[in-house]
Amino acid sequence: MEQRLSIITLGVHDFDAARRFYVDGLGWAATLEVAGEVVFIQVAHGVLLGLFAAADLAADAGISLGSGAVVSLAHNVSSEAAVEVALADAERAGATIVKPAQRAAFGGYHGYFSDPSGFLWEVAHNPGLTVDPDGRVNIGPV
Amino acid sequence: MEQRLSIITLGVHDFDAARRFYVDGLGWAATLEVAGEVVFIQVAHGVLLGLFAAADLAADAGISLGSGAVVSLAHNVSSEAAVEVALADAERAGATIVKPAQRAAFGGYHGYFSDPSGFLWEVAHNPGLTVDPDGRVNIGPV
Repeated sequence: MEQRLSIITLGVHDFDAARRFYVDGLGWAATLEVAGEVVFIQVAHGVLLGLFAAADLAADAGISLGSGAVVSLAHNVSSEAAVEVALADAERAGATIVKPAQRAAFGGYHGYFSDPSGFLWEVAHNPGLTVDPDGRVNIGPV
Repeated sequence: MEQRLSIITLGVHDFDAARRFYVDGLGWAATLEVAGEVVFIQVAHGVLLGLFAAADLAADAGISLGSGAVVSLAHNVSSEAAVEVALADAERAGATIVKPAQRAAFGGYHGYFSDPSGFLWEVAHNPGLTVDPDGRVNIGPV
């Protein structure tokens, strides 16, 4: 599993309030927005910040939602086979597989693991996500 | 406040286990390590992943430590004055100032706010953190 973060997703309890803060308040430009559902904002070369309802994020990962914050770090890879390899690498290193590799709701292929501290990582192949040489991230339908 | 993530810090309950997973298990190279205290790992162009004891992160932010995970997103800026400006921007956008701008333990200048969902952001000026044109992050004593 390579040393790479692709997306950090904040699982928020009030999606509209989160969007209002980052997009309207701070004036951060959305790379992709699905109204009322998800917002992706570019925050570094090749890296997106995602806003997603905590319940939706928990459901996507197949975990039960506690009262605390939910965060997911995404590690994107270039093929479905690479998803399996990275999840196996993580498990061998001591992670717990939370959701085995499978077709994802966004149309690609993904799985989730939790690190020994309980932090969620999604390993994903998303043909709809590409990074330009200058670091600009493009994300859209698969 | 510019659209930028500099560091994502995971506040972990077992620092040694977290280090073992990322550094020994996954084989991710540390950019900076202070034994038993903190590890920084480069995970994107200009972006570090930090591992820090949850209690230490909570103390640094001046918050009380709950049972859940603690995460802090850092937004680094180029001067002490810019720390004040970014914190004021965030507050105007609806954030809550958790720790007003002040001298930081690492030798620079910083403050913390929480977004409307409760996610922690540190706004920091750290003269010891520089990013090379190719995205490589250097971090060391101020």
